[in-house]
Amino acid sequence: MNTLQQWRDHFESLRAYEEAVALLYWDMRTYMPEQSAENRSKSIGFLSTESFRRRTGTVYQSLLEAMGQETLTGLEAVSYEKAKQAYDRDSKIPEAEYQTFITLISEAESVWEKAKDADDWELFAPYLEKIVAMERKFVEYWGYAQHPYDALLHDYEPGMTVAELDPLFAELRQAIITLLKQLDGKTFPTLDWSADRDTQIQLNHEWLNDIGYDFTAGRLDETVHPFQTTINRKDARVTTKYDEADYRNSVFGTMHEAGHATYEQGIAPELDTLGLGEGASMGIHESQSLFFENFIGRNQGFLAARYAGLQQAISSLKDVPFETFYAAVNEVKPSLIRIEADELTYALHIIIRYELEKRLITGELEVKNLPAEWNRLYKEYLGVDVPSNAKGVLQDVHWSGGSFGYFPSYALGLVYSAQLNEALRRDVANVDQLIADGTLAPIKEWLNLNIHQYGKAKTPAELIQAATGQAISVQPLIHYLTAKYTRVVEAL
Amino acid sequence: MNTLQQWRDHFESLRAYEEAVALLYWDMRTYMPEQSAENRSKSIGFLSTESFRRRTGTVYQSLLEAMGQETLTGLEAVSYEKAKQAYDRDSKIPEAEYQTFITLISEAESVWEKAKDADDWELFAPYLEKIVAMERKFVEYWGYAQHPYDALLHDYEPGMTVAELDPLFAELRQAIITLLKQLDGKTFPTLDWSADRDTQIQLNHEWLNDIGYDFTAGRLDETVHPFQTTINRKDARVTTKYDEADYRNSVFGTMHEAGHATYEQGIAPELDTLGLGEGASMGIHESQSLFFENFIGRNQGFLAARYAGLQQAISSLKDVPFETFYAAVNEVKPSLIRIEADELTYALHIIIRYELEKRLITGELEVKNLPAEWNRLYKEYLGVDVPSNAKGVLQDVHWSGGSFGYFPSYALGLVYSAQLNEALRRDVANVDQLIADGTLAPIKEWLNLNIHQYGKAKTPAELIQAATGQAISVQPLIHYLTAKYTRVVEAL
Repeated sequence: MNTLQQWRDHFESLRAYEEAVALLYWDMRTYMPEQSAENRSKSIGFLSTESFRRRTGTVYQSLLEAMGQETLTGLEAVSYEKAKQAYDRDSKIPEAEYQTFITLISEAESVWEKAKDADDWELFAPYLEKIVAMERKFVEYWGYAQHPYDALLHDYEPGMTVAELDPLFAELRQAIITLLKQLDGKTFPTLDWSADRDTQIQLNHEWLNDIGYDFTAGRLDETVHPFQTTINRKDARVTTKYDEADYRNSVFGTMHEAGHATYEQGIAPELDTLGLGEGASMGIHESQSLFFENFIGRNQGFLAARYAGLQQAISSLKDVPFETFYAAVNEVKPSLIRIEADELTYALHIIIRYELEKRLITGELEVKNLPAEWNRLYKEYLGVDVPSNAKGVLQDVHWSGGSFGYFPSYALGLVYSAQLNEALRRDVANVDQLIADGTLAPIKEWLNLNIHQYGKAKTPAELIQAATGQAISVQPLIHYLTAKYTRVVEAL
Repeated sequence: MNTLQQWRDHFESLRAYEEAVALLYWDMRTYMPEQSAENRSKSIGFLSTESFRRRTGTVYQSLLEAMGQETLTGLEAVSYEKAKQAYDRDSKIPEAEYQTFITLISEAESVWEKAKDADDWELFAPYLEKIVAMERKFVEYWGYAQHPYDALLHDYEPGMTVAELDPLFAELRQAIITLLKQLDGKTFPTLDWSADRDTQIQLNHEWLNDIGYDFTAGRLDETVHPFQTTINRKDARVTTKYDEADYRNSVFGTMHEAGHATYEQGIAPELDTLGLGEGASMGIHESQSLFFENFIGRNQGFLAARYAGLQQAISSLKDVPFETFYAAVNEVKPSLIRIEADELTYALHIIIRYELEKRLITGELEVKNLPAEWNRLYKEYLGVDVPSNAKGVLQDVHWSGGSFGYFPSYALGLVYSAQLNEALRRDVANVDQLIADGTLAPIKEWLNLNIHQYGKAKTPAELIQAATGQAISVQPLIHYLTAKYTRVVEAL
């Protein structure tokens, strides 16, 4: 068998393991009977380890060397380069240290859960200290051109650097704070957000159909902590949770996950056997989910066109004018919890975490001083007093899992989504009308042509440059937020 | 690591593959979106092959040799012996011939489907000829003491032989034909069997709860061709199909699958890591499903106790006296299709197939003469004229899959279930009352103690001898059928 065929077979075999593990997880979080859990965890552990061995063992090493001898072009060259980079990066961490790290974060995650529940920072702090110390060692192993944090960004946003992020986030932060000042003193309407489960299920299915989510290549199911998962290229599933006290969580959350799924469904299938069949980065992935959630789901025309239906389904809306509903849906309220934040203040939560992570990694900030710094920044950026560490520094799972460098992707998703929105409107006529009508084919086609199809065969910077004709920029997001909240304020 | 630990790890790794493949199948047949099918088949194929390699490759061979050097006792000795036997048996088929066989049956199954749909025997016949020829070669490779068909029985009913089956089936056939004669001329009541899907779902859940099916270690879902599947020892799922024209299919079919699942849930978990965590044989497995379907689900007291509820759920039963319902549920009607056969005539369908298989394997019967022989035996045993091959010789999938030797297990399941029923009533007081009350714990405990817990650590003959104090015998089944149809006739 020739080397290229072996290369493709290697990735096809990994795909089989990934499909199995993804489905074992999906089932665990949706339909699995409770007594199944112990065996299920073992099976997931075994198959994940087996897949890891195939990605790191001597057989793969020989294959990688053989590929290095081939004359490669096009996607095959990209496939090899990305694989070689990843392998070299992974090889830099001594195996014993990597194992220590895996054991540490697995313990840390369960300690974090307890610490959060008990609002007990001191319980978690020693673990976080160890994690930060190891992350600082790892970035030295990996190496970086300018800032140690760059080495961490690489895992989530290949090519992104602190030198690029710092000015972008500073500009964005300033713009949001300016907008927040304009909203100061405005009162948003208070609505009854309750709706029964069946109504929400029906609503979700209607909206998913409206946005053209492909149910022949995906599903919608119920879970405790909603997620999107890709079982295979033509099986990208979304999940949701039905909170009868607040239907916004499910309805907009489902749009968000459907954005992720539409990306996954749209990646060119031939990339799977080249190891390129996944999103270009966490930020680009998030740009797709946020595009569906904010630029479609929260689009004024989209909501207006569906408002009569909503009023029929949810009786408490009967006497509420659309403008009031639209203002209420877009309520801005600086708050403590990232995952409950509104569209405008969300990025501030991210920027705070980014600032803190950077300083932890350089050593400027010590873990013991983290809660005080957290609270100080929340006061400075969002104007809120943090009443407890449970609602502050302990709220996110990321650090306990060693996911330093991940948070910026959420804000980059916002930034990219607004850039893509602007470019889409340059290329496609009557976007608002298409969205209102639920005629999304031309929009999805544009996203597919410019983003989805490429998987990770292109870098985030290449995708954004090619799609928008510009480098990464926060200006489109600032313009969009300014225009949107000007409209919202008019309705108040 | 010592050899015994490696041995257990080997089976634990196989268990992980089996869990993954079982869930990939279950999902394919229940919830999978249609476009997922192509990738799904590839993943199942890859993981099955990988699991096969682990059961046959040189690593396993060395482990088997090392185990042969150990001094083993108890379950470990049984584990080794069964594994060694299976390995030796598999090694007797030259690899190239086995591969040819796998390719042949995979083609034959899809050809069979087309042939059945088109009622085109000539399309399928050449494939069946090749399959029979290979089966005849395989039995010579495997070897046998008396009859070549014994080598095929081994795969489904270890230890069973033609010498033992022939007189049992002759006796059973004669008894059934005698009973059929007594029923000749009797008219069973005709009822409206329609019920909407929701009613059937509710009924299934009620009855599964009544019989103590453990929903914390299983599930009930909908599918096209109902089956039971074991994802892991504590996750044994059942599926059903809702035919709104006839609720009997779903209600009794679900009881049947729940019998299989209860067996699987009850196998001692420690057998999994010894390769003994599965049913003792197809016949023993079927005895458990038939016990739940016939001896619980069709038990007169069970149905009588639930009849008021049934009448409320299904309005067409409102004015139907229980005796009429009971007679109708137990209608006997010699017919063409095995899977639609009643409790009394079912075994005749099996005996016909057994006779034909035996003669095909010895060469007494040629494939080209099979349809005529099929039709002749259906006329002789069941008194029915076969109008087409689609409703005759082409009706079952088994032969296209090379599953010669499988059919007898269905009849053995009936035989064993009646033996166990008799022994249960010897050991446990007031069985009918317990069944009527839905207090099945003592019955399930008896089945668990005598059958379930042992997995395949004991042979079918050992289990039946220990549980009943007797060797295999058709007398209990004949007594049961005679008593039952005497009661049914009285109600006509």
